[in-house]
Amino acid sequence: MKIKIINPNTTQSMTDKIGNAARSVALSGTEIVAVSPSMGPVSIEGHYDEAIAAIGVLDEVRKGEQQGFDGYIIACFGDPGLLAAREIAKGPVIGIAEAAMHAASFIGTGFSIVSMLDRGRPILEHLVHAYGMERKCRGIRTTDVPVLELEREGSNAQQVILAECRRALQEDKSDTILLGCAGLSDLFTYISAEIGAPAIDGVTAATKMVEALVGLRLSTSKVQGFAYPERKPYRGMFEPFAP
Amino acid sequence: MKIKIINPNTTQSMTDKIGNAARSVALSGTEIVAVSPSMGPVSIEGHYDEAIAAIGVLDEVRKGEQQGFDGYIIACFGDPGLLAAREIAKGPVIGIAEAAMHAASFIGTGFSIVSMLDRGRPILEHLVHAYGMERKCRGIRTTDVPVLELEREGSNAQQVILAECRRALQEDKSDTILLGCAGLSDLFTYISAEIGAPAIDGVTAATKMVEALVGLRLSTSKVQGFAYPERKPYRGMFEPFAP
Amino acid sequence: MKIKIINPNTTQSMTDKIGNAARSVALSGTEIVAVSPSMGPVSIEGHYDEAIAAIGVLDEVRKGEQQGFDGYIIACFGDPGLLAAREIAKGPVIGIAEAAMHAASFIGTGFSIVSMLDRGRPILEHLVHAYGMERKCRGIRTTDVPVLELEREGSNAQQVILAECRRALQEDKSDTILLGCAGLSDLFTYISAEIGAPAIDGVTAATKMVEALVGLRLSTSKVQGFAYPERKPYRGMFEPFAP
Amino acid sequence: MKIKIINPNTTQSMTDKIGNAARSVALSGTEIVAVSPSMGPVSIEGHYDEAIAAIGVLDEVRKGEQQGFDGYIIACFGDPGLLAAREIAKGPVIGIAEAAMHAASFIGTGFSIVSMLDRGRPILEHLVHAYGMERKCRGIRTTDVPVLELEREGSNAQQVILAECRRALQEDKSDTILLGCAGLSDLFTYISAEIGAPAIDGVTAATKMVEALVGLRLSTSKVQGFAYPERKPYRGMFEPFAP
Amino acid sequence: MKIKIINPNTTQSMTDKIGNAARSVALSGTEIVAVSPSMGPVSIEGHYDEAIAAIGVLDEVRKGEQQGFDGYIIACFGDPGLLAAREIAKGPVIGIAEAAMHAASFIGTGFSIVSMLDRGRPILEHLVHAYGMERKCRGIRTTDVPVLELEREGSNAQQVILAECRRALQEDKSDTILLGCAGLSDLFTYISAEIGAPAIDGVTAATKMVEALVGLRLSTSKVQGFAYPERKPYRGMFEPFAP
Amino acid sequence: MKIKIINPNTTQSMTDKIGNAARSVALSGTEIVAVSPSMGPVSIEGHYDEAIAAIGVLDEVRKGEQQGFDGYIIACFGDPGLLAAREIAKGPVIGIAEAAMHAASFIGTGFSIVSMLDRGRPILEHLVHAYGMERKCRGIRTTDVPVLELEREGSNAQQVILAECRRALQEDKSDTILLGCAGLSDLFTYISAEIGAPAIDGVTAATKMVEALVGLRLSTSKVQGFAYPERKPYRGMFEPFAP
Repeated sequence: MKIKIINPNTTQSMTDKIGNAARSVALSGTEIVAVSPSMGPVSIEGHYDEAIAAIGVLDEVRKGEQQGFDGYIIACFGDPGLLAAREIAKGPVIGIAEAAMHAASFIGTGFSIVSMLDRGRPILEHLVHAYGMERKCRGIRTTDVPVLELEREGSNAQQVILAECRRALQEDKSDTILLGCAGLSDLFTYISAEIGAPAIDGVTAATKMVEALVGLRLSTSKVQGFAYPERKPYRGMFEPFAP
Repeated sequence: MKIKIINPNTTQSMTDKIGNAARSVALSGTEIVAVSPSMGPVSIEGHYDEAIAAIGVLDEVRKGEQQGFDGYIIACFGDPGLLAAREIAKGPVIGIAEAAMHAASFIGTGFSIVSMLDRGRPILEHLVHAYGMERKCRGIRTTDVPVLELEREGSNAQQVILAECRRALQEDKSDTILLGCAGLSDLFTYISAEIGAPAIDGVTAATKMVEALVGLRLSTSKVQGFAYPERKPYRGMFEPFAP
Repeated sequence: MKIKIINPNTTQSMTDKIGNAARSVALSGTEIVAVSPSMGPVSIEGHYDEAIAAIGVLDEVRKGEQQGFDGYIIACFGDPGLLAAREIAKGPVIGIAEAAMHAASFIGTGFSIVSMLDRGRPILEHLVHAYGMERKCRGIRTTDVPVLELEREGSNAQQVILAECRRALQEDKSDTILLGCAGLSDLFTYISAEIGAPAIDGVTAATKMVEALVGLRLSTSKVQGFAYPERKPYRGMFEPFAP
Repeated sequence: MKIKIINPNTTQSMTDKIGNAARSVALSGTEIVAVSPSMGPVSIEGHYDEAIAAIGVLDEVRKGEQQGFDGYIIACFGDPGLLAAREIAKGPVIGIAEAAMHAASFIGTGFSIVSMLDRGRPILEHLVHAYGMERKCRGIRTTDVPVLELEREGSNAQQVILAECRRALQEDKSDTILLGCAGLSDLFTYISAEIGAPAIDGVTAATKMVEALVGLRLSTSKVQGFAYPERKPYRGMFEPFAP
Repeated sequence: MKIKIINPNTTQSMTDKIGNAARSVALSGTEIVAVSPSMGPVSIEGHYDEAIAAIGVLDEVRKGEQQGFDGYIIACFGDPGLLAAREIAKGPVIGIAEAAMHAASFIGTGFSIVSMLDRGRPILEHLVHAYGMERKCRGIRTTDVPVLELEREGSNAQQVILAECRRALQEDKSDTILLGCAGLSDLFTYISAEIGAPAIDGVTAATKMVEALVGLRLSTSKVQGFAYPERKPYRGMFEPFAP
Repeated sequence: MKIKIINPNTTQSMTDKIGNAARSVALSGTEIVAVSPSMGPVSIEGHYDEAIAAIGVLDEVRKGEQQGFDGYIIACFGDPGLLAAREIAKGPVIGIAEAAMHAASFIGTGFSIVSMLDRGRPILEHLVHAYGMERKCRGIRTTDVPVLELEREGSNAQQVILAECRRALQEDKSDTILLGCAGLSDLFTYISAEIGAPAIDGVTAATKMVEALVGLRLSTSKVQGFAYPERKPYRGMFEPFAP
């Protein structure tokens, strides 16, 4: 099985980290291809970044359909472009926020999300609601660490994140922590051990969920809202994106 | 006051119709500029169309900020790009679905949306929920009329829509009808007269709402989720979109 | 266009303030008439005050229909009598809490209400829910300042309110403040400037919303729950109120 | 124990029926006093009727406090004036819609409400939500029988109601029927026998609930939203209503 | 009327306390029989304890049907076995959490639950939601006092509970307190007097609610989800439980 | 990895079918052990059956912990005993209704459940809500086919189910079908092919989900509501179940 993991931002070090995380849990028969789009923001920290990044995601899914991928992962904790990607993909498409929340719902009674910039809070709130997790989510905690700080050597970002995870368990009465950024995907084992409770990373969770769906031979339903897009012209720089 | 109405699709006849509708209700001191993006789909009938169209919307808002507009309207009944647009606009940005639903909540006890393709239903359901209208919306009714059929001379689309509006009042126990497509913005007076109940068009509703907000000197809050985007490089074809 | 603003309490200084606030944002062609009922409580600080005050509101709407008003505003942040008023009015009727919440939903991701007595909290919670704003409202904050303290010269009520607005932005992670009393309608510009975020006053917001609806030629739907009351006798002191 | 049942409309035959229904289930030690206000509408079929009728209800509660009543019932299936009445009463106050819904939640998995005019539907929807019954209520069915038709000899209203109860069980998959009008309080035994499922009348349900609360020595909490009204002057015809 | 109160745990001192509490409020004509099952946990402090305890509850209801009981109370603040018990009982079955929440909804605007071990919080959250009380419940507060500590002489558990009740009123803005354990049923009068607000005990509340329902001749609806179980064999140690 | 699939009823032919379904999708390295409890109902069609069956489930999980299983599946579409099982298991425990709903949420916009007896509807509604799927579930459809009819040769149950699946797609506007009984786990490929849309079987879905969670090294969180049960004596026939 071939899974394409799309890091919606263009920062290659993060793409590498994401690919490694996915491969660390993938089945031996699963080929993981981790990519960044050729276009878009270097990090994603708001609605505007997300809207632009979604196009890169869609571009990679479009190419992926011709490259024969069985499933896709959108590796940014805002799941940009998820619903649109489902329209053009035959196989399953999963976002890492989505995967993390669903995984958490199987092993705990309530989770907290520990994330980056405070301005992203409304995006997370919206996802929590879209996925029906409003009664499972006990807290959204932001640290005001910029995403790319996670890529900077010598940064103390990891310690800031870890401390916030500890506070989340205590103050939110949560029993599971979701790491709210793909850039944290190398830390979940470490954080889990430190805090004595499951810390879920969306990249690895999504990898196993896509494997599961492909293993079930389940693909995206094409009879209603995720049917292939209607054929029609697209104008200007989006001509090549026409369905 | 200057308001830019952005038809997110590239079909000029629809843009003209939208501009006319807006001008028919605008104050004498309001300058309405109706535009289509130079890029994107000719009509918007799904999540994929929407994601692409959002970029054209954002492009027009970006330009609009330099052109001195006081407010913006996104004239597609899926409100594509709305939240992202708010990040880059100083003045208010309103979507036509949003405007229609809020207007309806002031004058009735419950509304039905009469819209086009059935595949768009999940998009409308999502908006109803995002805007807190789940207890006001008594029905979402689709007609399976393609959007561009509204632009085709000799089409019977209007009669199909009108019949569905009648059924909505009867079967959904609604007291207000929302016309679920910008392409219907020339029909609300006619339909309202025919059915004996308010039929709300989002284009005109949004025009008056933006006028109202600008008149209140209210602009988009910049202290949290709609703060201006973080400065950062964008790669590839989106370099010019970098904040 | 003629708009009647009804201060549901009988305190004339507040009625004057409300009228002035409305006029400060009204269109030049809008005639604002601000009234207090001839009967009812001098301030409104609970369910009982509200139930009595609603009659004064309805009395003014009844008279207003004969006086040729195009729309009505109920200028108390509990929106007393709103639904009943809609049954007897042809034009739109808007409450100031309702107007403020809807306006806030257009320009921010989440608001806090800063209000007066703590005992009024359940009333505000109920309105937040009735208007579908439970996912937009991030906090209801009361100051235990009595309403009429706002009318007393030398009071420090304004500073108490301002301080609470500041705390709301910080602690609730809100980006917009709603001033939860008509008696605060002279302060929104000042508070907004002080806190660096939009502070919305319901009186002015409702004024522009009614102008907008009248400008759209939208009146209260008469086909279901807001149909004119059934004709029937009323007994005793309410004989003159019979529909 | 002394319980005052307030029929919020002024139709004496209905008040008599309500009193009889209450007495038919009351404990031998319970004194039931059924009253109509001296003022207000002859029947209650909308928001406007309700707002006016609420004053009569409050008047009777005010008098009742001096007459030494232990609890109150508001015997109209819209529960007009309920929250305001709780502010001025020491003992419990229960509405018949409220009582019926809570009783139903103890004995079934889901109920339907069978009621009168279709225009009252939004009022019932609002109550269902206010009482947290949105996941218990499987249907609101109206018959367009006017309230006073239930008082008219020779009317076929009872058969219309009975037929609707039957349909509700079948079509809504309900297992319990709520009779949505105080004027039906003489029919619940008959209807229950006919349909083979519990038919709950709010008047009798409220009678037993008030008895239960008084038996528990529970009175309305006075520490927050139902505290006694603030002392203040009331003007005009409401001077005597001042707290 | 005969009511069986089932203490789902096997601790006799608690059963005695529960029986006394019920008798302290029961009508003179009501016979209260308080029992513990012959099997199951000595206290109930989690989902596993609850699942096992439910069988003891069902066993007592099965026997109760042959003993001629008119109604049943499940006297543990997690209401274990409630829905299953309703299938096999003719008369009403009420849980004490359920009774307490419904009673609170009649006399206040919002309640807090003060309970025992923190691990039980998700169980309470689930009940709050199942009973539609999510807009009434302002706080769930746990004290980490084990249930059986309430039975130990010399324990300071009561003072810990009382202090938490005080904090709940202050911090949660509640106006009513629910005592979240059957082992607290001897304390509600004392706590209520100490805190100056209603403290509701579920055992006594349920007693009066069952009396009310039986007085209304309402029994569990048998036409849908609570119909008597389908006849079928049960295997092994549960053979005698076969319907 | 070793997964124990527990058919909560005692009908061996169904257990065999369930085991085969699980093995048809399991990884080559996964050992599937399908068991029935030695006690309990032969089929599960209501709350009472479920409460009893839960004990058999817990017994198998208890034994499973000593047998070294990595995860568990509860193979009845009511997920009996799920939360209690999580307290006593180290590895993940998943119910088949839960697995099916979560899987559906990844590949469609809305699902219908096609199930057996109508009396089970409230159980399904409750699960839909508990799992946060109320905005994904577009319909619960029952066929009134008894569970064991699926095991009877010559039965037309499959055709009845298939027809209902077809109606669900049409009438509910669903794009995915959930087969609401473990006894249907041999049919999902056939039904999916017939209806041209994904038909999800919970047994196979749960198998892949448990594999995924074990592959992620995620086990049930032990820091809050799913902590191991408190040590304490159990009485009577449940003595051996004491934690």
